[in-house]
Amino acid sequence: MKEQFVAYIKDLQNTITSKIEAIDGGATFKQDLWERPQGGGGRTRVIENGNVFEKGGVNTSEVFGELPESMQAYFGVKEANFFACGLSLVLHPLNPMVPTVHANWRYFEMYNKQGVLIDQWFGGGQDLTPYYLFEKDAKHFHQACKAACDIHDPLFYPKYKARCDEYFYNPHREEGRGIGGLFFDYCKKSTKMQIKDWYNFVTQVGDSFLDAYTPIVEKRKELQYTPEQKDWQEIRRGRYVEFNLVHDKGTLFGLKTNGRIESILMSLPPSVQWRYDHQPEPGSEEEKLITVLKNPVNWA
Amino acid sequence: MKEQFVAYIKDLQNTITSKIEAIDGGATFKQDLWERPQGGGGRTRVIENGNVFEKGGVNTSEVFGELPESMQAYFGVKEANFFACGLSLVLHPLNPMVPTVHANWRYFEMYNKQGVLIDQWFGGGQDLTPYYLFEKDAKHFHQACKAACDIHDPLFYPKYKARCDEYFYNPHREEGRGIGGLFFDYCKKSTKMQIKDWYNFVTQVGDSFLDAYTPIVEKRKELQYTPEQKDWQEIRRGRYVEFNLVHDKGTLFGLKTNGRIESILMSLPPSVQWRYDHQPEPGSEEEKLITVLKNPVNWA
Repeated sequence: MKEQFVAYIKDLQNTITSKIEAIDGGATFKQDLWERPQGGGGRTRVIENGNVFEKGGVNTSEVFGELPESMQAYFGVKEANFFACGLSLVLHPLNPMVPTVHANWRYFEMYNKQGVLIDQWFGGGQDLTPYYLFEKDAKHFHQACKAACDIHDPLFYPKYKARCDEYFYNPHREEGRGIGGLFFDYCKKSTKMQIKDWYNFVTQVGDSFLDAYTPIVEKRKELQYTPEQKDWQEIRRGRYVEFNLVHDKGTLFGLKTNGRIESILMSLPPSVQWRYDHQPEPGSEEEKLITVLKNPVNWA
Repeated sequence: MKEQFVAYIKDLQNTITSKIEAIDGGATFKQDLWERPQGGGGRTRVIENGNVFEKGGVNTSEVFGELPESMQAYFGVKEANFFACGLSLVLHPLNPMVPTVHANWRYFEMYNKQGVLIDQWFGGGQDLTPYYLFEKDAKHFHQACKAACDIHDPLFYPKYKARCDEYFYNPHREEGRGIGGLFFDYCKKSTKMQIKDWYNFVTQVGDSFLDAYTPIVEKRKELQYTPEQKDWQEIRRGRYVEFNLVHDKGTLFGLKTNGRIESILMSLPPSVQWRYDHQPEPGSEEEKLITVLKNPVNWA
C-alpha cells in the first residue's frame, strides 16, 4: 500500500504541475528536493509570479522513523514507528476573480517496535476559497467532489462536505475560510471498507481535482478587475493566513515538530493586507461573499 | 492602584497619540470606543496611511468581571473575579529604514468570590523591530530602556532585556522577531518591591517610550529607499505576523477568549509578503540584520 500510494501521489504531482504550467503559460515550477535527517524527505514544487498563478506549491513528501514524542501523545501511543506520505497543494491566483484552492491526500502507517503494522489510515480533501462568488463555480466544484464520492458511498459527500465546513472555520471571525469541498481523516479498515477501498476512494478524489478546479480558472482568468478588487483579495488572504497560522493543525504541527518550514509555509499567500475594521459595503459583491462564508450552502 | 494606573495609561495614550500625529503630519488617529458585555471596555485608536506611519494602533482597555474558565486554568485558580487594564501599541512605519515598535504596560488584580483582593501584578515592556539595522538606533533604544530600569534596580535591565529576547522569538525561523528591549511580567509585591514601587517602575518605562523611539523615527523617516528595500520590509513583516499569530500569548489568548478582534489584530502590518525560500544576499544589509536577529547583541 505504501509503495502504491507513493507512486500515485508522485504521478499525480507530475500531472498537476504540468497542467498548471500549461494554464499559466508563463512561470514554471521550481523543484526542491529535501531530506529529513530522521528518515525520508520530499519533492517541493513552487510556482511564483506567473501569468495566472501569483504563488503556489504542489508538494509531495514521504517521511518515516520513530514516532516523535509530540505525535505519541497526539495518537495516544508510545514507542512506535511510523510512515507518512502525502501530496499537499495550494494555488493563489493573481486575478481576484479566480479562487484559491487547497488540496491534500495522505496516508499514514504505524508500527510497534517489532515492526508489526498496528494501524493505517488515509486522509485528505480539497476546498475552494473564492474572493468573488460565482455560484456556477461553487456548484461545479462541489458537484465534482460529490461525483467522486458517490462512486464509493452516497453518504460520503454530505459527511465530508460538512466536516470541511467545520474544519476550515475561523471562529474569531465567525466565518469559513472558503466555500468548502471535502475533508476526511482517519479513514480506516471497517466492515464496509477495506484499506484498498479507501485507497480507491482517495485516489478517486485526487483524480477529480483538476476537473474540479481548472475549468473555473480557465473561465475567470481573463476577467477584468479593479485595484479595489485586488485589495479585497489581499484583505481576504489575510483571513487565509489567520486560519493557517492560528488554527490549521497540519501547519502548527509542522512548525512545532521541526518540519521543513519553507514547504509548510508555501501555503501562505504572496501579498496580503490587514486593514483596521474593514467592512464590505452593504449590498456589494464583497458582502455577498461574506454571507456565504458565514452560512455554508449546499452547492451540490 | 486600579484608578491610578487607569488614569496613567489614558493620559499616556493621549500623549503618545498626539506626538505620533505631530510626527506623521498627515494622518490622525481614528478612535473607537467599545464595551465588553461581561464588564469594561476600551479606547482603540488607529492610524492608517499616514506620511510616516502606514498603520498603527495605540489602545487602552479596562476589563473586569468573572475570571473566564480558560483563565482559571491558566492562573491555577477557581471561581475568581478579575480586573485588568493596559495600554498596547504597535506602529508600522511606511519607510523600511524606520523600525516597527511594540509596547505594552498592564496591571492585573484578582479577587475571591467575597471580593477580597487575592493577587495583583504589573507586566509589560517595549521592543524594536528594524528592517535595516542602524547600530546607533539600537543602542539609543536600549540605553533608554536601561536608563528607565536603572533608576529602580540595576539588575532589571539585564534581566528584562534577556526575557525580551527569549519571548519575542520565532523558533521555527530560529531568529528573534526584532532586536528586543524589555519584557517583564508577574511583577508582584516582594520584600524589596511594594506594589507602589512596581507602579513607579512600570510608569517610568511608559514615560521613557517616546524618548526611546521617536528620535529614531525623526532621524530615518526622510531616508530614500528602493522598491526592493520595501519588499524586504514586507517580507520581514511576514515574520512579525508569524510570531503574533503562532506564538504570542496575548494575541492567541485574545482570539480564543472572544476579545475585541479588531483591537487585538491592529498589531498586524498593513501589507505583507511571503516568498518561497527567500534568502538575503551574502554580505548584504539584509543579511546583517538576520545575523543580529539570530545572535542577540548587548546594545546598551
